[in-house]
Amino acid sequence: MFLTRSEYDRGVNTFSPEGRLFQVEYAIEAIKLGSTAIGISTSEGVVLAVEKRITSPLMEPTTIEKIVEVDKHIGCAFSGLMADSRTMIDRARVECQNHWFVYNENMSVESCAQAVSNLAIQFGDSDDDGAAMSRPFGVAILFAGIDEKGPQLYHMDPSGTFVQFDAKAIGSGSEGAQQSLQEVYHRSMTLEEATTAALTILKQVMEEKLNSSNVEVMTMTPKNLFHMFTKEQVEEALTNVFPAEHPTPIKVNKQKV
Amino acid sequence: MFLTRSEYDRGVNTFSPEGRLFQVEYAIEAIKLGSTAIGISTSEGVVLAVEKRITSPLMEPTTIEKIVEVDKHIGCAFSGLMADSRTMIDRARVECQNHWFVYNENMSVESCAQAVSNLAIQFGDSDDDGAAMSRPFGVAILFAGIDEKGPQLYHMDPSGTFVQFDAKAIGSGSEGAQQSLQEVYHRSMTLEEATTAALTILKQVMEEKLNSSNVEVMTMTPKNLFHMFTKEQVEEALTNVFPAEHPTPIKVNKQKV
Amino acid sequence: MFLTRSEYDRGVNTFSPEGRLFQVEYAIEAIKLGSTAIGISTSEGVVLAVEKRITSPLMEPTTIEKIVEVDKHIGCAFSGLMADSRTMIDRARVECQNHWFVYNENMSVESCAQAVSNLAIQFGDSDDDGAAMSRPFGVAILFAGIDEKGPQLYHMDPSGTFVQFDAKAIGSGSEGAQQSLQEVYHRSMTLEEATTAALTILKQVMEEKLNSSNVEVMTMTPKNLFHMFTKEQVEEALTNVFPAEHPTPIKVNKQKV
Amino acid sequence: MFLTRSEYDRGVNTFSPEGRLFQVEYAIEAIKLGSTAIGISTSEGVVLAVEKRITSPLMEPTTIEKIVEVDKHIGCAFSGLMADSRTMIDRARVECQNHWFVYNENMSVESCAQAVSNLAIQFGDSDDDGAAMSRPFGVAILFAGIDEKGPQLYHMDPSGTFVQFDAKAIGSGSEGAQQSLQEVYHRSMTLEEATTAALTILKQVMEEKLNSSNVEVMTMTPKNLFHMFTKEQVEEALTNVFPAEHPTPIKVNKQKV
Amino acid sequence: MFLTRSEYDRGVNTFSPEGRLFQVEYAIEAIKLGSTAIGISTSEGVVLAVEKRITSPLMEPTTIEKIVEVDKHIGCAFSGLMADSRTMIDRARVECQNHWFVYNENMSVESCAQAVSNLAIQFGDSDDDGAAMSRPFGVAILFAGIDEKGPQLYHMDPSGTFVQFDAKAIGSGSEGAQQSLQEVYHRSMTLEEATTAALTILKQVMEEKLNSSNVEVMTMTPKNLFHMFTKEQVEEALTNVFPAEHPTPIKVNKQKV
Amino acid sequence: MFLTRSEYDRGVNTFSPEGRLFQVEYAIEAIKLGSTAIGISTSEGVVLAVEKRITSPLMEPTTIEKIVEVDKHIGCAFSGLMADSRTMIDRARVECQNHWFVYNENMSVESCAQAVSNLAIQFGDSDDDGAAMSRPFGVAILFAGIDEKGPQLYHMDPSGTFVQFDAKAIGSGSEGAQQSLQEVYHRSMTLEEATTAALTILKQVMEEKLNSSNVEVMTMTPKNLFHMFTKEQVEEALTNVFPAEHPTPIKVNKQKV
Amino acid sequence: MFLTRSEYDRGVNTFSPEGRLFQVEYAIEAIKLGSTAIGISTSEGVVLAVEKRITSPLMEPTTIEKIVEVDKHIGCAFSGLMADSRTMIDRARVECQNHWFVYNENMSVESCAQAVSNLAIQFGDSDDDGAAMSRPFGVAILFAGIDEKGPQLYHMDPSGTFVQFDAKAIGSGSEGAQQSLQEVYHRSMTLEEATTAALTILKQVMEEKLNSSNVEVMTMTPKNLFHMFTKEQVEEALTNVFPAEHPTPIKVNKQKV
Repeated sequence: MFLTRSEYDRGVNTFSPEGRLFQVEYAIEAIKLGSTAIGISTSEGVVLAVEKRITSPLMEPTTIEKIVEVDKHIGCAFSGLMADSRTMIDRARVECQNHWFVYNENMSVESCAQAVSNLAIQFGDSDDDGAAMSRPFGVAILFAGIDEKGPQLYHMDPSGTFVQFDAKAIGSGSEGAQQSLQEVYHRSMTLEEATTAALTILKQVMEEKLNSSNVEVMTMTPKNLFHMFTKEQVEEALTNVFPAEHPTPIKVNKQKV
Repeated sequence: MFLTRSEYDRGVNTFSPEGRLFQVEYAIEAIKLGSTAIGISTSEGVVLAVEKRITSPLMEPTTIEKIVEVDKHIGCAFSGLMADSRTMIDRARVECQNHWFVYNENMSVESCAQAVSNLAIQFGDSDDDGAAMSRPFGVAILFAGIDEKGPQLYHMDPSGTFVQFDAKAIGSGSEGAQQSLQEVYHRSMTLEEATTAALTILKQVMEEKLNSSNVEVMTMTPKNLFHMFTKEQVEEALTNVFPAEHPTPIKVNKQKV
Repeated sequence: MFLTRSEYDRGVNTFSPEGRLFQVEYAIEAIKLGSTAIGISTSEGVVLAVEKRITSPLMEPTTIEKIVEVDKHIGCAFSGLMADSRTMIDRARVECQNHWFVYNENMSVESCAQAVSNLAIQFGDSDDDGAAMSRPFGVAILFAGIDEKGPQLYHMDPSGTFVQFDAKAIGSGSEGAQQSLQEVYHRSMTLEEATTAALTILKQVMEEKLNSSNVEVMTMTPKNLFHMFTKEQVEEALTNVFPAEHPTPIKVNKQKV
Repeated sequence: MFLTRSEYDRGVNTFSPEGRLFQVEYAIEAIKLGSTAIGISTSEGVVLAVEKRITSPLMEPTTIEKIVEVDKHIGCAFSGLMADSRTMIDRARVECQNHWFVYNENMSVESCAQAVSNLAIQFGDSDDDGAAMSRPFGVAILFAGIDEKGPQLYHMDPSGTFVQFDAKAIGSGSEGAQQSLQEVYHRSMTLEEATTAALTILKQVMEEKLNSSNVEVMTMTPKNLFHMFTKEQVEEALTNVFPAEHPTPIKVNKQKV
Repeated sequence: MFLTRSEYDRGVNTFSPEGRLFQVEYAIEAIKLGSTAIGISTSEGVVLAVEKRITSPLMEPTTIEKIVEVDKHIGCAFSGLMADSRTMIDRARVECQNHWFVYNENMSVESCAQAVSNLAIQFGDSDDDGAAMSRPFGVAILFAGIDEKGPQLYHMDPSGTFVQFDAKAIGSGSEGAQQSLQEVYHRSMTLEEATTAALTILKQVMEEKLNSSNVEVMTMTPKNLFHMFTKEQVEEALTNVFPAEHPTPIKVNKQKV
Repeated sequence: MFLTRSEYDRGVNTFSPEGRLFQVEYAIEAIKLGSTAIGISTSEGVVLAVEKRITSPLMEPTTIEKIVEVDKHIGCAFSGLMADSRTMIDRARVECQNHWFVYNENMSVESCAQAVSNLAIQFGDSDDDGAAMSRPFGVAILFAGIDEKGPQLYHMDPSGTFVQFDAKAIGSGSEGAQQSLQEVYHRSMTLEEATTAALTILKQVMEEKLNSSNVEVMTMTPKNLFHMFTKEQVEEALTNVFPAEHPTPIKVNKQKV
Repeated sequence: MFLTRSEYDRGVNTFSPEGRLFQVEYAIEAIKLGSTAIGISTSEGVVLAVEKRITSPLMEPTTIEKIVEVDKHIGCAFSGLMADSRTMIDRARVECQNHWFVYNENMSVESCAQAVSNLAIQFGDSDDDGAAMSRPFGVAILFAGIDEKGPQLYHMDPSGTFVQFDAKAIGSGSEGAQQSLQEVYHRSMTLEEATTAALTILKQVMEEKLNSSNVEVMTMTPKNLFHMFTKEQVEEALTNVFPAEHPTPIKVNKQKV
């Protein structure tokens, strides 16, 4: 009785007979083509670990940023269309700055996710807001931050829906990674355990061998806000987690994770 | 003699030969994919009970808000596209604030529903009102409130039609739930009976077992306006309603419903 | 030689080879899906009687308004898309207020219908008039009023055409009802006879049994302008008209119709 | 070699391979669905006689205006989409008023037709003139008037083309009526002969029997400008023309035509 | 390898794979449906002779203007869509007035054609110039005028291309007429010979018999600018050219052509 | 695996799967339907020779301009859609004037080509620049000029790409002509040799016999800027080049080329 | 289950069911039709070497610029649609100028690439920024520059993604060239070795024999910023690299690379 779905899925804002908005669902598919990112929130702090896809040995890995600082107390990892993410990160940064300027306090992680969500759901509207798009954003974001409620992790998908998670994986390996996260996560995890878990799971879902070029790690604790791992720190972490595969490097400026 | 319906259902504002607007009907279908929400209005007050879909054990249930406070005397439960609901709630809140500011009295529940309805029927228009959409909203709303006419419950669907109900269910389980509501509802119900009925019916239509994470309950009485149940209160209520399945928890700050 | 009609009926403002505008014709079909409304104009006054569709026993019938007051001397009954009717009623009310304000006299019923017609024919235009629609309105209206020419009844369809009638039925049962009206109507009818005729005919075309919840009645006489029947008055009227089916209720505040 | 016509006839302003604009041709078809109107210009004056379609015996015929006064010295009869005609009549009236205001003389009938034609050919343009339409007007107009050149009759079709005629019929019966007009028309006709001819021909092409309700007659002489026949005058005229069918009514306020 | 032409010919401004703009070509076809017009330029002056299509004997031929005066020294004959021609004539007149106002000299015929061409090629552009159209103009124009270079004749087609001609025919009979013009035209023709040639050729290509109602003639000499033939002068000319068919009428106010 | 090209070639700015923009390629095809033009740049100066298509013996060839003066030191020959070329020539002229006004020096030929190219690539953009088009221009241009770098010849195609050439042919005969140019061109050519070569090659690719009506020639030397050949000079040149076919005419005002 | 890709690839901003944006992918294909360009970054400096396609021996190769100077310290090589590249280069130049004007320091190469990327991702948006396009840019760019971080090479594709590379090839021969670059590149390369490598690889992937007309070379060192090779320097370099094929020319103004 109903048409095949194919008839409804190109109109950006057209309902199918079953009440679905296919373009939003397809945008969610775009995430599944992206690189994998994992976030874990513990009582000590939050950790983000992401895969970087190095398609050529002549590529300079440091210029591919998959984890960015929104504010000192909020970092984001994303997966999907890189170009789209930039608009959303810009909005997040501006909102955080405004919040600080107006209220003289850090924006909560939830408010920050809310602000980006407001942007995400505007697609297809003819608002005079310059950031509105003619299609849904093809990006999933993990917001990792620490505010007065403590360490927090939020996940937002292209529909603009955001939900707080204890641990969440996005991107092409998200299905398997999320399964593993549910098995290893427990409330009393330390941040170090969380970092180890994130790297271990990332290793399972990535096709290539982990090294300091194709993995980015960020940790955040109340005392040590947005802390991006240097190349050496990533190598050290990998050596700790996979001692068999990563022989200990000579460590410079060692820093306790 | 007539064409198949397929030819007319993609134009947002195109009549089919039988005089139907299919996009509005499909938006109503979108509600049937949403989580179930139940509202009951008694002479003592109103109760809203909604299902929360916890798709992952690592998800933080408290961040999924299915019942929101519009004003102290009006709460809303909704089902359907979460992103769409936000625009409508914002409109409801602004209208309530304006009403208070201009008339120094609470907006009636009917007026509040009317204001949101005005927004809902604007889709497809090129009005310079920034909130207008290019498609119908994919959201059904239950307005539960108390004004000078006493406790009231209104239901609004994507066509913008709103009607007062004694008891109403929306979302994926609405068909069975509405049937049950008609059987148990009577004018002399107490609010406690209504809460018990709402939870009992929600249990029937939900696929998962009820617990304090996947159910939200709100009650409103003239003396105790918008009152969202805490996790403990939900558990207590569940224990009272389903004593066999929910062993009595240790209650903290017990509060009479 | 000509194409099938299907090729021309989706363009809102496209002529078919026979010179027809199908979208307007389809909007007229939308009325045939609506609830039935009957209006009769007599020398004593006018009466409107409409069906209310109560789809659920928990629905509060009083919030479904099918007859509204435009001004003290003009009332409207409509059938079709409820959301569309609101815009038209608003226009009618504003025009009546303006007329009073500017000329210090009541707007004639014809002028009021004219004003709403002007709104109805603007669809598809890119006028900067905020009320213009991208499709024809899916509403038929009965204007019942009393002006210096005495009691009057006007009918307007989605094409914006309005014509004065002695008696007119609209909505799903309009075909049979109009036939019956032609049989019973005569110039010397009293208003009470007209009310009885309206209810009798409504009973014939409605699927459900008439009661004080699913029927609305309004009468207007020069001395007693816009007079909406209370629930008790509807019941009393039904008892008078159908004594067999409606046992006499205890009447409170009886009022001569 | 050429495509079938079906490919080109929906674009409002798209040429077919043979150089035709089908939408304008289809609008002309819309006239053929309208009621018949006849105009005759004599040296004494002009007469317009139109059919009124009374689709229901309860309809009030006087509210269906098929002949309207544009200015004291210009009257219009139209056939086709009634709603469209209103915009054109408004333009004609405004232009006549302006002309009087600016030049202190009556606008000529030709200038009046020209002004309406300018409006008619603007469809599909994105002019900021609020009266422009997205499709051709579906209306044919007979302009009957008296200016310094004497009695005049102009005909305008949806393409905006207007031509002076001695006698012209429009609407569904126009083909047969125009044929009859050519047979009976002669330069030395009196206005009374013209009125008789118009009614006789109208009778031939109308399906229903002529009576004072379904016919409108207007005459204009230099001494007696825009003169709409009253119901009694129509009956008197019908009795004079068809004495067998219309027994002489008791005449009140008899007036020489 | 290429598609059939049908795929490209509806987009107003879309190239076909062979680099053609079909809508412009179809507009040129529209001319071939129009009435025939002939222009001849001699050293003495220019002559325009056009066919008028009298579709009804009750039509007043004088109101169908196929030759119009742009300025005292420039006249235009056109063929095709009459409504379109009006916009172009208006532009021509305004440009001539402006030229006179600014330079205090007559606009040259070429400049006048250039100005109208500028208008013709703007179709499909979103210029804020109110005269731009959404399709090519469906009109061909003959500009006949006398400027400091002497008598001149220009032809412009819907593509906006204009070229000077010694003699040119447009409209439905243009193919045969142009052939005849090439045979009879010679540089030393007198204006009277040219008028005779124009009428003779018009007679060959017109379906109806020539008379003073269905032909318009205009001559222009340096001493006698834009001179439209009166009905009597047309008849006299016809009698001179076709003495067998047109018996000499009684001539009033005879005037040497 | 890929679709046929037909699916992508109508969107003005849509890439095909192979990364091609078909509308631009089709515009280039439009040039191949145009008349042939040849340009040769020598150390002495530049020469342009173009074909003029005389479709009727009554056409006045001098009004078909295929070579135009942009500035004293820059001339253009074009091929393709004549109407499009006008916009581009206007832009070129304005830019040259501006350059002179601002810098008090002649615009270089390259800068002039650059300015026109900027206009050509704007199609499909919604810039508020009035000259932007909704499709690519269907014109190829040869810019022949002399600036401080000496004689120069530039070619620009509809994609806006412009390149300096020693000798270049455009239009329907361009393929064969370009082949011939490569054979005869050498760096030490005199301008007279170049003119002879241009006419010889034009003769090869033109279907009609060359004469002073269907050929235009322009030469430019540092001492004798933009010099359009008169009819006599063209005939003289033809006689010199093809003595057998063109008997020597009596020369008036002979001028050394 | 999914449709073929063909259904989704024409909408500029429409997701396919797999979450892909085909128009961006097709734009990337457009690069593969372009000429090859190679960039290598060494510790001494950067080198760009590009193929120039000379399609006609009469073409003047110097007017085809494939390497352009953005600022003294940044040069760009591009491949794909030449017309598109101009807009991007303009943006790059303006941003560099602004940076210098505001901060009085050279813009970093990364910031410059970022600025152009911002422009590239705006396509399909209705921003009032005049540079936004209705399709993705069909251009890939190599940014070669020297800033405070030393010599740098960035690559940007039509999706706006930019990444730093040690060595990168773009255009039709990019696949083979990139493979060769990976084999020969090592961190301790001198700039001369890099230039030799670039030319050697370019020779492998180009169909035509290398010469000073169809190759452009640019080197940049901290002491000798944007240095475009003259024709002689290209020939000298070719002779050095391919001594067998290029006999030593007489060198003028020899300059150490």
